[in-house]
Amino acid sequence: MNLKHQLNVDLADRSYPIFIGHNLLQQHNLITDYIKGSSAVIVSNTTVAPLYLDQITAALNSANIRFDTVILQDGEQFKTLATVEQIIDTLIENRHDRKTTLIALGGGVVGDITGFAAAIYQRGINFIQVPTTLLSQVDSSVGGKTGVNHPLGKNMIGAFHQPQCVIADTQTLATLPDRELSAGMAEVIKYGLIHDADFFHWLEKNISQLMQRDTNLLSEAIHVSCKTKADIVAIDEKESGIRAILNLGHTFGHAIESAMGYGNWLHGEAVATGMVMAVDLSERHQWIDDQVKSRTVELLSKANLPVKSPGEMSPQQFMNIMAIDKKVDQGVIKLVLLEKLGKALITADYQADLLQQTLKEC
Amino acid sequence: MNLKHQLNVDLADRSYPIFIGHNLLQQHNLITDYIKGSSAVIVSNTTVAPLYLDQITAALNSANIRFDTVILQDGEQFKTLATVEQIIDTLIENRHDRKTTLIALGGGVVGDITGFAAAIYQRGINFIQVPTTLLSQVDSSVGGKTGVNHPLGKNMIGAFHQPQCVIADTQTLATLPDRELSAGMAEVIKYGLIHDADFFHWLEKNISQLMQRDTNLLSEAIHVSCKTKADIVAIDEKESGIRAILNLGHTFGHAIESAMGYGNWLHGEAVATGMVMAVDLSERHQWIDDQVKSRTVELLSKANLPVKSPGEMSPQQFMNIMAIDKKVDQGVIKLVLLEKLGKALITADYQADLLQQTLKEC
Repeated sequence: MNLKHQLNVDLADRSYPIFIGHNLLQQHNLITDYIKGSSAVIVSNTTVAPLYLDQITAALNSANIRFDTVILQDGEQFKTLATVEQIIDTLIENRHDRKTTLIALGGGVVGDITGFAAAIYQRGINFIQVPTTLLSQVDSSVGGKTGVNHPLGKNMIGAFHQPQCVIADTQTLATLPDRELSAGMAEVIKYGLIHDADFFHWLEKNISQLMQRDTNLLSEAIHVSCKTKADIVAIDEKESGIRAILNLGHTFGHAIESAMGYGNWLHGEAVATGMVMAVDLSERHQWIDDQVKSRTVELLSKANLPVKSPGEMSPQQFMNIMAIDKKVDQGVIKLVLLEKLGKALITADYQADLLQQTLKEC
Repeated sequence: MNLKHQLNVDLADRSYPIFIGHNLLQQHNLITDYIKGSSAVIVSNTTVAPLYLDQITAALNSANIRFDTVILQDGEQFKTLATVEQIIDTLIENRHDRKTTLIALGGGVVGDITGFAAAIYQRGINFIQVPTTLLSQVDSSVGGKTGVNHPLGKNMIGAFHQPQCVIADTQTLATLPDRELSAGMAEVIKYGLIHDADFFHWLEKNISQLMQRDTNLLSEAIHVSCKTKADIVAIDEKESGIRAILNLGHTFGHAIESAMGYGNWLHGEAVATGMVMAVDLSERHQWIDDQVKSRTVELLSKANLPVKSPGEMSPQQFMNIMAIDKKVDQGVIKLVLLEKLGKALITADYQADLLQQTLKEC
C-alpha cells in the first residue's frame, strides 16, 4: 500500500474522498470502487495519455467495465464548448446512459472540461478526477468548479459539479516539466499564506527537497493544500464569501496573464508575482511586517517562480485590466490581502495611493 | 389584484414561488422583486415577443433595471447548444456580471434554453420563468429541468437549475393556438390520473369551460397541477425514484413523436395517446377497472386530444424505439402504469404479452 493520505471533502450528499500517494493508479479498486454503473469514458490529452492511460484501462478491464476513450489536444486553447460537444458526441454515439462515469486523466484543463461535460450530460452524470499535475492536484481537485472558456473571457461557461473521488498519484509528477512543478508550488505556498503559518514555515524548511520531487514530502504538501481548500469550500461551496480568499494574488495575476498573452506566463507564475504584490500592498498598510514579504519572495524564488511583474506593464495597464475582472462589485475592485501571515481578508477598503505604489514598485 | 394563487416550491435554499392569475404581467413588482442585481436579459421568441415583451420591459423600466433582449426563432429545432451560446454572447458582450438575471418569456422551449444558459453562465446566475403556454405553465415551470437537444437525442444536454420565481399569467393563454391549449391540457389530465382522483373528477365536470378558456378555472387547474408536481419534486428533486411517475404516457408518447417525426404530433398529443395506452395496459393487468379507461378516453377526447396511436405504427416499431428510451434500465423497459385512478406506479413487472396486446389494439 502506498496510500499516504485520504481526505474527505465534506459537502453533505456530494461529499467525496481524495486519495493521495505514490503509485495509486496501480491500486485498481481506488477507481473501480467509485464507478457505479458498468461503463465509463476516459478523457485525456495527447501528452498524458501515452504516459498513464494504460494504467486506467487496466483498472477498468480488471472490473469488466466497458469503456470508450476521448483524447483531446493538449492546451488551454481547446478548453471550449466545442470540445465539450466532442465528448458528448462520444457519449451518445456509444450509448452511454446516465449511469456511466467520466474519468478525467490530465491537468486542470482536462479536469475542467471533463467535469463540465459530466455536469451537463443528461443533466449530470458521475465523474472521477485523476489529476496529473501538481497544480490540478492541489487546486482543481477540490471545489467542484468545472467549465470552459468563451472567446471573450476565461471560465465564463461552467457549473459546480463534484466528483465521486479524486486520485492524486504523486508518481504522475515524475514526468511533469520543471516549470509546471513550480507553477503548482505557487498554489501550495498560497495555502500557507492565506490560512496556515505553520505550513508556510514547513514549506520554507522543505522547499529544496520538494523541488527535487521527494514523493513523501509532495504527498504531505498536497494533503495539507487539499485539506485547507476543502475546509474553506465546505464553509462556502458556491463562493458567496470566504471562499474568495483562495484568489490571493489572482487579480494581479490575471492582469499579468492577460497583458502578456495567455500561455506566455503560466497561471501559477502569474499568481506567484500577484501574491508578492498582494503581500507588498498589505505591508504598505502595515497589516503585516516586512519580514513576511521577504520570506514570501525568498520561498517563491526557491520554487523557481517569478517575483517581479513584467517590466513592460504600467500601473495604468494593471488598473484597466483589473477593472473588468469578475471580482469587481459595483465598480470597486475587491482584493484579497493579508492581515497576518496565515490569515487573508477580502477587502475593498485599501488606499488607492498605496495600490498605485505597489503597481509601480513591484 | 388578480393574483389567484401563490404556491411555494419547497426545495430548501432553492425554494421559489409560483404566481398564478390573470394579468399578472401588469403587476410589475412580481418580476422586479425577484431581480437581485441591477441588470437583466430577457429571452423570448419571434412569436411571443410581439405580444408580451412590452409588459416585461415596462416592469424593468419601472424599477430602473438595465436590460438587453435576445429574440430567438420559434421552434424546437432551435433548442440547441448554438442558441445557448448566442445568449451567452449577448451576456458577455454587454458585460452582464454574475448578478444579472435572465427572464424567459415564452413556452417550454424558451424556458428550457434560457434556464440552461442561466445554469452555466459564470457557473450559474438567477433566472425568472414567465411561461406563456398552458403546457409550460403546468409542466416546465416546476422541477428545475433545463436543457437543449443533441442531434442524436432530445434533452441530452442540460442541468437542474431552479428559477427565482415563476409567473403564470392566464392572460397569455388568450393568444394560444387551440391545438396547443389541448396539448397542455393533456398534462393537466395526467396529474389527475397519477395523483389525484378528485381533481380528475373536477376536470370531467369542467372540461368544456376550461377549453373555452375560463380564466378562473384555468388558474385553478394550473394551481392544482403545479402543486401536484411541486409535491412530487420536493420528495425527489433529481428523479432518482418517485418523480418518474410524472412520465405517465411518455414512453409510449416519445415513441409516437419519434416515429412520426418530431413536430408532427405535438408532445401533449403524443402523451395523451400514450396515457390511453398506459391505462389500457393497467386494465389488462386488472389493476384498474374498465371505467377508468373509458373515462380517460372521454376526458381526453373532450380536450380535443388524440386517443389512438397512429395506424401506421406496428408493435415492433414501438418496441424498437422504446428500447432506446432513457428510462431503460439494464435492458428492461420500465413503464409508468396505474394501480388505481389517482395513483401511479413505476414498474418493470408487467406481462410482455399484455404489452403486445396494448400495442396492437390501441
